[in-house]
Amino acid sequence: MRFGFVNKENMSLLTDLYELTMAQVYFKRGMNRTAIFDFYTRKVENRSYLINAGLEQLVYYLINLKFTEEDIDYLRSTGLFEEDFLKYLKDFRFTGNVYAVDEGEVVFPDEPIVQVEAPLIEAQIIETFLINTLQLPILVATKAMRCFSVARGTVLVDFGLRRAHGTDAGMKAARSSFIGGFAGTSNVLAGKEYGIPIFGTMAHSFILAHKNEIEAFIDFATVYPENAILLVDTYDTVEGVYNAVKAMKKIGFKHFKGIRLDSGDLLSLSKISREILDKEGFKDAIIVASGGINEYKIKELLDRGAPIDGWGVGTELVVSADLPYLDCAYKLVEYDGKPVMKFSKKKRTLPYKKQIYRIYEEGIIKKDVITRYDEKVDGGRSLLKKYIENGELIKKLPSLKEIKEKAIKSFNSLPEDMKDINRAVHLYPEISETIERTVKELEMKYLKERKG
Amino acid sequence: MRFGFVNKENMSLLTDLYELTMAQVYFKRGMNRTAIFDFYTRKVENRSYLINAGLEQLVYYLINLKFTEEDIDYLRSTGLFEEDFLKYLKDFRFTGNVYAVDEGEVVFPDEPIVQVEAPLIEAQIIETFLINTLQLPILVATKAMRCFSVARGTVLVDFGLRRAHGTDAGMKAARSSFIGGFAGTSNVLAGKEYGIPIFGTMAHSFILAHKNEIEAFIDFATVYPENAILLVDTYDTVEGVYNAVKAMKKIGFKHFKGIRLDSGDLLSLSKISREILDKEGFKDAIIVASGGINEYKIKELLDRGAPIDGWGVGTELVVSADLPYLDCAYKLVEYDGKPVMKFSKKKRTLPYKKQIYRIYEEGIIKKDVITRYDEKVDGGRSLLKKYIENGELIKKLPSLKEIKEKAIKSFNSLPEDMKDINRAVHLYPEISETIERTVKELEMKYLKERKG
Repeated sequence: MRFGFVNKENMSLLTDLYELTMAQVYFKRGMNRTAIFDFYTRKVENRSYLINAGLEQLVYYLINLKFTEEDIDYLRSTGLFEEDFLKYLKDFRFTGNVYAVDEGEVVFPDEPIVQVEAPLIEAQIIETFLINTLQLPILVATKAMRCFSVARGTVLVDFGLRRAHGTDAGMKAARSSFIGGFAGTSNVLAGKEYGIPIFGTMAHSFILAHKNEIEAFIDFATVYPENAILLVDTYDTVEGVYNAVKAMKKIGFKHFKGIRLDSGDLLSLSKISREILDKEGFKDAIIVASGGINEYKIKELLDRGAPIDGWGVGTELVVSADLPYLDCAYKLVEYDGKPVMKFSKKKRTLPYKKQIYRIYEEGIIKKDVITRYDEKVDGGRSLLKKYIENGELIKKLPSLKEIKEKAIKSFNSLPEDMKDINRAVHLYPEISETIERTVKELEMKYLKERKG
Repeated sequence: MRFGFVNKENMSLLTDLYELTMAQVYFKRGMNRTAIFDFYTRKVENRSYLINAGLEQLVYYLINLKFTEEDIDYLRSTGLFEEDFLKYLKDFRFTGNVYAVDEGEVVFPDEPIVQVEAPLIEAQIIETFLINTLQLPILVATKAMRCFSVARGTVLVDFGLRRAHGTDAGMKAARSSFIGGFAGTSNVLAGKEYGIPIFGTMAHSFILAHKNEIEAFIDFATVYPENAILLVDTYDTVEGVYNAVKAMKKIGFKHFKGIRLDSGDLLSLSKISREILDKEGFKDAIIVASGGINEYKIKELLDRGAPIDGWGVGTELVVSADLPYLDCAYKLVEYDGKPVMKFSKKKRTLPYKKQIYRIYEEGIIKKDVITRYDEKVDGGRSLLKKYIENGELIKKLPSLKEIKEKAIKSFNSLPEDMKDINRAVHLYPEISETIERTVKELEMKYLKERKG
């Protein structure tokens, strides 16, 4: 019986077969000059910006990557690989350079968020894992920031672990939502591994296992006098709030942490709950809402004056429900010093090793310019930084708190219309003349060869 | 720096904080009698049936679950847990019983797919992981079966690893799509861990790294004479097919495996490609299509006569794009021998330990009946089987191939209208009179208590 966990020892095989078969062909042909690959996203219909995230996990993968004896035995068993190539894999390490946009930075379509410069075989083999490990963090950090941007200082907590797509998605969602402005997560392992604050309330089963709500509330608050958030909607919500008040009075509490509403009309129920709590002397008890929460509901409820202090955001956050995948790619743009590009309609790639320059006007992003790596743009802040050199990490990675601060600052530098969650405004990066010229030259060259 | 891998050692902390705080309250109050929890899904708008999957991973979790010293040190550091409870966790094992529907079986809303019977604390602590580990496999096995059901014997391969939500989702997607009728996966680690056949073609970068298509095709086919599926759409697809033919003739091949189309109008391109291949003497070369494939596109293309032999199905499969999450729940239905239920509107639970009976007419499912566990239904096949007794696995788990065969057989027993991918027909399980009576009694009792 196998769970199929992915860990440090077997992550090298978490790749598409073709990465390894292509690698063997390159190996046999001695094709292993320096390649440049770009990771970037294509236009997203319902997002004006994306928040970059997931880089730390990519770095971890790249500096720890190796094939174990067990991996190699499996590859041998497929009959697809020869001994000389398997021996090469045995000594395989990632020895290239990685340029990346910092985690937390806002990014736009077509921008090379991560750029890999490495011997062709190495740059190819890492493709699948690289996309896998970056896509979900970007999706969730972005969704989280959309929630944060309309939350007006109310507290956001990731409640999504159970509905995340498996174990790793639960971990990535907790980390990425924290980057996107969330205060913490219900995920205990994410608390331990990443140092993210953990939060929790109680489940309906806790009420149902007791004789009635009042006893359940008393039991919980007695054990957790400082942290009891009482779930009031198991039977009838308004009565549940009164029962919370009765329970707290019965045990002589002058204060308690608060209540949670998990169903029903959250606008009217939060207003009634607030009234009851205030009238009964529990003005400092907070109201937490959960159940199908997303950025649209948060905005609407707060716009309409719902006195909600905190949100448990679950499913829609962790699966990025209105955008469950990114149209993202990892494409070869330069090989052995020569620019290359794909011509397929709508899926054009930009040749060369590149840099992104961000230009501000009074602190607000005016435009991004994509240039060749060695070009300069006056007054532009360069976004791609060298994280890995010759396979070694050469930059101190920031803490999650620092990444979150960067994300909020970067979000604040967006033009106002791009912050609106109800529309998508696309800021296309400008492409430098040098690159545009190369694109035209490559197209001409290709057309000429076809005729010839 | 941390990746945040989940493994056998730390999976016990992959849970919501409230599971552990509720557990401490139960522990303090000595509330640890036998509880029954149901895992079930609510109505799904765009699915007539679901394919059950993921049980093996749940079993693995339950029989291996324990808290390590490191886990307990972390919990201690939160300040939320007392030493007596931490000592209890140190010796914690799952000692309960688990009844489950076999993997591969079709299931419907409201049916308890997994039923846990265990001391309350144990049954509560496992909630989050249980839902996390089952949801995605069910989503992907179902999506895969929808593809399989319209594929008319063409070959389906999971190409989705890169767009899966993290590492574990990639593993779960490969396993679950195999259950749902797929022939294999591109995911090498899934091949190794689960023994699933692995497949691969080549990437655009492979073409771009070469001087031209012909050289790239020759290089690949020389190393893989039996397995070369040549990607023909990097520049111009029709020309790509001619280049594949030229390349194969140049190296004297009378046969080659086939070509892959990854963009453009797959109907016309597959027809033109077929003509060229046939005319040039490569009648046995297959055509594989990929790029945004889902069950709707497969059906439409085959309905319109596209000569496509195989499909690489990626993103839409692995994120279950048109249904990225299930409205599923794990709810207490019985505690200490007494039935319990939640009354919230639309989220009613069914009390008692239960059984599901499936009734057939001429081999086709006529209806499912949900009864109390000890009731019998004449001519009904019981779906819930005891997998775990007192914390030990007591059933031989089937192989993935056997599960796949069960899935196809179970799918074939659906009424014809439920197999249609373009509509959703809901077969609601019948609820036995005993349960219905208890529901009414509990409602009466609750109303009486409220008045009292």
